Amino acid sequence: MSQSVVISVDAMGGDHGPSIVVPGVALAAQALPGVRFLLHGDGALIEAELAKHPAAKAVSEVRHCDKAIGMDEKPAQAMRRGKGSSMWNTIEALRENQAHACVSAGNTGALMAISKLILRMGADLERPAIVANWPTMKGVTAVLDVGANVESDADQLVEFAIMGAAFHHAVHGSKRPTVGLLNVGSEEQKGHEEVREAHAILREAKLDFDYHGFVEGNDIAYGTVDVVVTDGFTGNVALKTAEGLARFFSNEIKSTLTSTPLAMLGAAIASGALKKMRQRLDPGRVNGGPLLGLNGIVVKSHGGADAGGFASAIRVATNLARSDFRAEIDRNLKRLTAAAAKDEAPGQGQDQGAAE
Amino acid sequence: MSQSVVISVDAMGGDHGPSIVVPGVALAAQALPGVRFLLHGDGALIEAELAKHPAAKAVSEVRHCDKAIGMDEKPAQAMRRGKGSSMWNTIEALRENQAHACVSAGNTGALMAISKLILRMGADLERPAIVANWPTMKGVTAVLDVGANVESDADQLVEFAIMGAAFHHAVHGSKRPTVGLLNVGSEEQKGHEEVREAHAILREAKLDFDYHGFVEGNDIAYGTVDVVVTDGFTGNVALKTAEGLARFFSNEIKSTLTSTPLAMLGAAIASGALKKMRQRLDPGRVNGGPLLGLNGIVVKSHGGADAGGFASAIRVATNLARSDFRAEIDRNLKRLTAAAAKDEAPGQGQDQGAAE
Repeated sequence: MSQSVVISVDAMGGDHGPSIVVPGVALAAQALPGVRFLLHGDGALIEAELAKHPAAKAVSEVRHCDKAIGMDEKPAQAMRRGKGSSMWNTIEALRENQAHACVSAGNTGALMAISKLILRMGADLERPAIVANWPTMKGVTAVLDVGANVESDADQLVEFAIMGAAFHHAVHGSKRPTVGLLNVGSEEQKGHEEVREAHAILREAKLDFDYHGFVEGNDIAYGTVDVVVTDGFTGNVALKTAEGLARFFSNEIKSTLTSTPLAMLGAAIASGALKKMRQRLDPGRVNGGPLLGLNGIVVKSHGGADAGGFASAIRVATNLARSDFRAEIDRNLKRLTAAAAKDEAPGQGQDQGAAE
Repeated sequence: MSQSVVISVDAMGGDHGPSIVVPGVALAAQALPGVRFLLHGDGALIEAELAKHPAAKAVSEVRHCDKAIGMDEKPAQAMRRGKGSSMWNTIEALRENQAHACVSAGNTGALMAISKLILRMGADLERPAIVANWPTMKGVTAVLDVGANVESDADQLVEFAIMGAAFHHAVHGSKRPTVGLLNVGSEEQKGHEEVREAHAILREAKLDFDYHGFVEGNDIAYGTVDVVVTDGFTGNVALKTAEGLARFFSNEIKSTLTSTPLAMLGAAIASGALKKMRQRLDPGRVNGGPLLGLNGIVVKSHGGADAGGFASAIRVATNLARSDFRAEIDRNLKRLTAAAAKDEAPGQGQDQGAAE
């Protein structure tokens, strides 16, 4: 694929629609030369915003439609009545090869359902996964699945590891990502059957990443590994627990630094450093969680993200479109299948791994 | 039970043994009149610490033993060779009715295994659960299970709800606790079978607490409910994820406020308020997670807790010993069994709950 990339954008998604999406496109357009955009949604609203943002206008094409999917709409309902909506058309443009990737800040359940319906799963992949870009002490860790599924068996966890590693390589630039499996302890006998089985498969597989072994919840923030793999229930709870805690901390800092005149003075003096800290911890800084496993690149922006956050999601989509991450996933899946076939060949014990 | 309470203490547990445990006992003795202590462990070491802490010495009896369970010892090994160790004797004293509750900062797996072996499960209870006292925007939420089990079925989740509510009532003083079931969304159809089934049971049951329904990860820090119920795998991951994030934040604040001379000046000026914030967010402030479900009160102190933290664990044990929380658990379990028997009576549909 050449450097020229087209991103299909759901201009109506998120809490603010075009008033955030278009400025986000403008920021991305300045940072990412060679990227063009298809903006799906209410033509009049989009044009009004584009008039204020010439950087976006120069590289965008408006695709009008009348409908939009609500932020609270149920996935089943969105699939039934979604045809012709901005979200639907955004993804349809990808299927029709008019774009290389798409971005929506619309509701996650609807986006997942419509994407699966239109794009279908990639060859040999069983389940999609949603990735969270988690700021850590060392950089950014990709955590998946954070909510596409409620249960995952061992084979699906292994697929998540392969998809997550390819993603981290493509978007966060790790040469050879390290991957950990989330568990309640680091010893081999810990955890339930699915994680122990996935552990056994990953330990033996020779893939394009380094399998670190089990990691625990605190390893996410420590940045122990580049990719943390877990089922969608646990991943979603971990992510939302962290979001809740981050808000609690941020409130505490604010109220602490306005609690007394002396504290306010101190905060004013330290304001530059405090602002830098807020930016570093800002979840929006690494906004843009792709739905992995589909026949196409779909990136979900946080519904409440600002223009900078939306631009970050566009950057993620562009990096994925310019990378060969899908070929990397295919290559690793084939190696895994080949290794499994070898294991089952006559004369080989079933418990080959356990003998080591 | 009278106001006079005896607490059996594992003086060798934790990262620091008697040098933290004895000062912790001294702090607790001053705050909790009428409490006496049995201190199990190396007699010479304990006596040396008691000599420095007359407040502890006045209310303690030393029970010498030669052995201690290591912090990294596996549960199975601890059970095999644990007899006569400080942890073993601490719990044995409870079984022999020499004490009303016990506290250990020793390793959780060993403490759980030895406690189950010596005390056995309480009548009608299937599985033990470990409770975390989680500081929130509104106070303290009890989260359980955070690691006694790796999987939990619907009935066990319901038991955790009952035990957690009785605990919150006894230790944190809520008149009628609110209880939520941790899930990936608040709608009825969300989540896996176990949580949906537990939800159906709790919704119908008339117990001594208010069942709130599903809560999400962010609701923990928001303090949406007094008790959050989940399986031990998810609970452990959520707790450790939060601990990792808390350390990340604390590091960021420290490095931010020492990053420039101006930031250091600001921090110095705001130091009083910042110190108060650290205390409010300090996990040790509400240290002391009981192992619920056993025939006896066993409270786990964090291995790295300081004397104040250990005293907090003693306070939790004392409050539990002075409360009727075990009678409350029994009462609710009986109501649940009665309700289930009524549901299964002839002429009643199986899906009575779903019909509402």
